[in-house]
Amino acid sequence: MPKKPIITLLTDFGLEDTYVAEMKAVILSICPNVTLVDLTHNIEPYNIRMGAYLLARSAEQFPEGTVHLAVVDPGVGGPRKPLIIETNSAFFVGPDNGLLVLAAEKLGISHVYEITNRAYMRKEVSNVFHGRDIFAPAAAYLALGVPAKEFGEEIFDYVKPSYTKPKIFRDKIVGEVIHIDHFGNIITNITKKQLNMKGIDYGKSFSIIFKNRKPVKVKLLESYSKAKKRELLTIVGSGGFIEVSANMANASKILNVKPGTKVTFNFSS
Amino acid sequence: MPKKPIITLLTDFGLEDTYVAEMKAVILSICPNVTLVDLTHNIEPYNIRMGAYLLARSAEQFPEGTVHLAVVDPGVGGPRKPLIIETNSAFFVGPDNGLLVLAAEKLGISHVYEITNRAYMRKEVSNVFHGRDIFAPAAAYLALGVPAKEFGEEIFDYVKPSYTKPKIFRDKIVGEVIHIDHFGNIITNITKKQLNMKGIDYGKSFSIIFKNRKPVKVKLLESYSKAKKRELLTIVGSGGFIEVSANMANASKILNVKPGTKVTFNFSS
Amino acid sequence: MPKKPIITLLTDFGLEDTYVAEMKAVILSICPNVTLVDLTHNIEPYNIRMGAYLLARSAEQFPEGTVHLAVVDPGVGGPRKPLIIETNSAFFVGPDNGLLVLAAEKLGISHVYEITNRAYMRKEVSNVFHGRDIFAPAAAYLALGVPAKEFGEEIFDYVKPSYTKPKIFRDKIVGEVIHIDHFGNIITNITKKQLNMKGIDYGKSFSIIFKNRKPVKVKLLESYSKAKKRELLTIVGSGGFIEVSANMANASKILNVKPGTKVTFNFSS
Repeated sequence: MPKKPIITLLTDFGLEDTYVAEMKAVILSICPNVTLVDLTHNIEPYNIRMGAYLLARSAEQFPEGTVHLAVVDPGVGGPRKPLIIETNSAFFVGPDNGLLVLAAEKLGISHVYEITNRAYMRKEVSNVFHGRDIFAPAAAYLALGVPAKEFGEEIFDYVKPSYTKPKIFRDKIVGEVIHIDHFGNIITNITKKQLNMKGIDYGKSFSIIFKNRKPVKVKLLESYSKAKKRELLTIVGSGGFIEVSANMANASKILNVKPGTKVTFNFSS
Repeated sequence: MPKKPIITLLTDFGLEDTYVAEMKAVILSICPNVTLVDLTHNIEPYNIRMGAYLLARSAEQFPEGTVHLAVVDPGVGGPRKPLIIETNSAFFVGPDNGLLVLAAEKLGISHVYEITNRAYMRKEVSNVFHGRDIFAPAAAYLALGVPAKEFGEEIFDYVKPSYTKPKIFRDKIVGEVIHIDHFGNIITNITKKQLNMKGIDYGKSFSIIFKNRKPVKVKLLESYSKAKKRELLTIVGSGGFIEVSANMANASKILNVKPGTKVTFNFSS
Repeated sequence: MPKKPIITLLTDFGLEDTYVAEMKAVILSICPNVTLVDLTHNIEPYNIRMGAYLLARSAEQFPEGTVHLAVVDPGVGGPRKPLIIETNSAFFVGPDNGLLVLAAEKLGISHVYEITNRAYMRKEVSNVFHGRDIFAPAAAYLALGVPAKEFGEEIFDYVKPSYTKPKIFRDKIVGEVIHIDHFGNIITNITKKQLNMKGIDYGKSFSIIFKNRKPVKVKLLESYSKAKKRELLTIVGSGGFIEVSANMANASKILNVKPGTKVTFNFSS
């Protein structure tokens, strides 16, 4: 635990209500010395997968001992369990619906606990706001140094999402779009290593096919500015995946592509 | 006053300008050790009532001694007074237009002061930005421990808004929609206690009429997940009011309802 | 350097991704005791000029020793240099594309350094995210007290943008719209002093012409509330420039005006 603990927050609550602030109020009541960092609160409502991807890419940047509080929770108040996942270097707190696992696996899961101990919950627990009443206090007590095993029993049957890995063929890779960012960069689940194995390095071009549409010819470039203005390119994104981008323009609008779209990288022609 | 004071900020300034940051700069110049928490800056421009509701539901979650700085201020630079409201457990700083009173009354108003002491204002006071030049320094000096009575004279004729309470009849309750949240939940001003008095508890259904439209039959449920996907329900919201919701869908879009809409809960049929 | 250093952040990254949070993670890993303040992350993508204006108006409000980290960086990964600008009272960190200079000049530039020292960068530097990998660590080490000259060589040929100043004629001033704010206030690059020199003071009226459109007659008023509801007026904005506003309404929508629009203040009639 660092001397000044850090709690990060990721939700689909948006910023027009005070739901996020109410979670922070609960945290500060328990652990006044904490540093709070918003990851994002603009996860598309109920989009667990978008939350999982953004949590996974950002959590690994934080110092050891950080507590990550993540709430995209369509099943709130129902039978899904509230969880603490302890990893080698951080804690994750949130619902048992797959949201936390992608990030936690990257850091190495050591134990998973179901939160059941009422002593570490808000006095009154609303059925519609476990973010404030169960997850926020749990994160705050973890940041104070309460051991994860104090919150409830260890469990092993938590939800393990099978996020699609790309399929690798002789002369193509078939993956999918996992995220469109603020600039319209189209982030795929295909890595640089996988491209390299097909003989593609900086300066080389190949074809990209979204769904069943016409192929688009693009080069792998080292930086946006190596392309002409509005020209399409592929690049190694800062999260480690191959992105389809356009220099100073919005690739997702140019190509009309959304998260979840199937994408084929074709090296045959 | 806690050792590490907390100042919260609620405004209609949005996040695309730097108005909020400029208030924080002024606060940090006076009180460097403060913890700053954004409640929300997405209050609809000039919508005092939306600000009052969100301030009231979130302020009560914060630790004792918190200073709440709230600026929805269409009358800035005009005759409306700048206020400090001292309550049993917190301070509120903002314009005298009703914005603060709903929240302050919940915590128990002890004194109300008009801010007139130039010693606690920014050197130059712009006529269009009292948030930065009067309210932010006042909040910061309060957080430092300056007594509220140092800022100006006690007053008693501050604006006391008469926010509508629902009207209770033999077999119906007539209230209104006070807020639509990020998920499209329709938050009414009717409480669980009022519903219970009409014999409605979990699992029971009744009719809801928005304006003069066709009645909609809904059940009071304990959690969203007890309804089918996209099914309408009512639920006890985390702010204590009855909300009309849809499981994993946007009830306000399904029903085409806005804040201020009259709502009738009908128990006769 | 204050005991508790402050780092501000201004970007065009938006808040739906975790790019801003990843910069904060890197900063907190190096300088855990920092206070982080978001200026805004809603700069229009690639709009260096909007970033420069908002950085300039907000930076001067912060205490001495503040480090301002600003990233609007269409040339990331290309030949543009990463900079530290040292001024009399603050540091600016960001790309050499004009973004920092307007703000830095206001505070008095003393030295400009190109960041080249790998010891103060993230171990792995992505070609698409210098905000996280070069600028954030530089800001954090500056906040720790590392002297600016440790980061690289002093340079003198940094980009010096020539932001348009208004042209002053006998009976008119020709300037332009530099920003539209959240409320629709139309912020020009014309100052109160320039208006006064043409004999306009509070209560006096003159004509405003956007582009080649029909003139609009407006008064210079001391506060919004001196105009009728929805009436157009001009006012001295909190950034020191003349703004065209409407009382409790959105002037930019009423007049259909955008940033960059030419504006003529005409005093002849």
